Amino acid sequence: MKNVGFYNGRWEPLEKLFVPALDRAFYFGDGIYDAAYTKNKIIFAEQEHVTRFFHGLERIGIRLPYTQKEVTSFLRLGVGLCDDEDLFVYFQASCGTSVRYHAERGKTGNLLIMIYPKRIAPQGKTLRLCTTTDTRYDLCDIKTLNLMPNVLAAQKAEDAGCDEAVFVRDGEVSECAHSNVHILSGGVLLSPPPCFCTLDGIGRRHLLSACKELAVPVVERRFSPEEMKRADEIIVTSAGYPCQRAVECDKAPCGQKDDGLFQMLSDAVYRELEEETKGSNVVFDVQ
Amino acid sequence: MKNVGFYNGRWEPLEKLFVPALDRAFYFGDGIYDAAYTKNKIIFAEQEHVTRFFHGLERIGIRLPYTQKEVTSFLRLGVGLCDDEDLFVYFQASCGTSVRYHAERGKTGNLLIMIYPKRIAPQGKTLRLCTTTDTRYDLCDIKTLNLMPNVLAAQKAEDAGCDEAVFVRDGEVSECAHSNVHILSGGVLLSPPPCFCTLDGIGRRHLLSACKELAVPVVERRFSPEEMKRADEIIVTSAGYPCQRAVECDKAPCGQKDDGLFQMLSDAVYRELEEETKGSNVVFDVQ
Repeated sequence: MKNVGFYNGRWEPLEKLFVPALDRAFYFGDGIYDAAYTKNKIIFAEQEHVTRFFHGLERIGIRLPYTQKEVTSFLRLGVGLCDDEDLFVYFQASCGTSVRYHAERGKTGNLLIMIYPKRIAPQGKTLRLCTTTDTRYDLCDIKTLNLMPNVLAAQKAEDAGCDEAVFVRDGEVSECAHSNVHILSGGVLLSPPPCFCTLDGIGRRHLLSACKELAVPVVERRFSPEEMKRADEIIVTSAGYPCQRAVECDKAPCGQKDDGLFQMLSDAVYRELEEETKGSNVVFDVQ
Repeated sequence: MKNVGFYNGRWEPLEKLFVPALDRAFYFGDGIYDAAYTKNKIIFAEQEHVTRFFHGLERIGIRLPYTQKEVTSFLRLGVGLCDDEDLFVYFQASCGTSVRYHAERGKTGNLLIMIYPKRIAPQGKTLRLCTTTDTRYDLCDIKTLNLMPNVLAAQKAEDAGCDEAVFVRDGEVSECAHSNVHILSGGVLLSPPPCFCTLDGIGRRHLLSACKELAVPVVERRFSPEEMKRADEIIVTSAGYPCQRAVECDKAPCGQKDDGLFQMLSDAVYRELEEETKGSNVVFDVQ
């Protein structure tokens, strides 16, 4: 199959997957999601994504009828059903199906999976950024379905010929519309720490691990957009952007002043990705 | 029919209405909604709701293939299909159908309508409130589908035996989880003005009109939760709560100290509702 969708146990080609209009995701955005990529049919950082997903569910009180192992099995099964080897693996759980009543959150959750061809950015891919005001709410430490400000910012960035929008809150950078952002300054990696407006991104964790491995000092603190624009390097991370260098911000060139260190980090992050996704065997049983 | 749902031209009983999983409302909450009530099959404040809906669509760049008149016709048709006379009329538009890509907002929007039995609160209905921190984002002047903080607050209120949660932001009351809140103090109505965190509620507009009609002074300013709790009256308004008196807040009695003025306002608001929903003829053609 070219792509595949799953809803509460039913598999369909994505375009033919229909869900109840009464699913609370549809009118309240009452749900949690996560997203990963495959390479050679292997889901990269699979358990980190699934574990974060279940933490999010617990945070907002969604009860799925599936265990973490079962969800993992579904994801692997879906990957196996698709023809391509490089796929985007999206999964979300909503707070059940009910008529529209805010405080009706006791229902069993609904599980949706969508898998379709999409590649992780290649190592050399550079990004153009633009900054925008962070108008989001205070639940940005979990991946909810309330992404209106993110889609508006991403659209604004794209319309301006950019790849990603950097959110600025109270004079400091929080994260991007769909990724984390970090800077290299004097050989030190500065990274906004996870909080209500900065996700504990899995790409971010892998970059920090690479820093540890390479003995690159890390300071977890926020920085201003001005400091970011002056930095030696600006690095963007997400599931799809493992370690991307920004070369332009708000229409001006940026970063690219510590090529050696950036390349070392980029090599380490992409090496881990390659190593974890070697081979092409789909394992259906979860260990 | 007991209830009815509509999606892009198709009518179904609500429980049988299915929508594409790729509708952007489902995974991004990328959409706008509005909601009204009928009495005697007449949609109260119909054009105010439909006009606000279209303003919201324009704000976030959603293009529906229907005009305001056509949407009104659909709403009236749906009301006509239902057996009950007192109905909840919900309508939403999402930013189209596409694979999950943030900046893919150019598609034609999808229109959903859900209509089912639900009554406007009767005039004597009183409310119990609880306060909670306003963690919402800065797009609360339009009715988007990003309602996670609202549903969490409403659930918290219900679990505490209350009817509604009052949001407090930077030490001041903004609005409630699904309604506006105002106070009477020394014969003056204080009402938080519409802004990024307070909706220009249609119930609010009707209360302010009643004040004008009765020569009750109105001051549009925010107030602290303490000032609210000390006030002569706390009044909650929404489509379903035309003019409701709060009798308890955070487990302590509140308001009920200006019975005369509250009753005058309540009478005026409910009188308008009665007058505008007289008769039971459903008009299918929009004037």
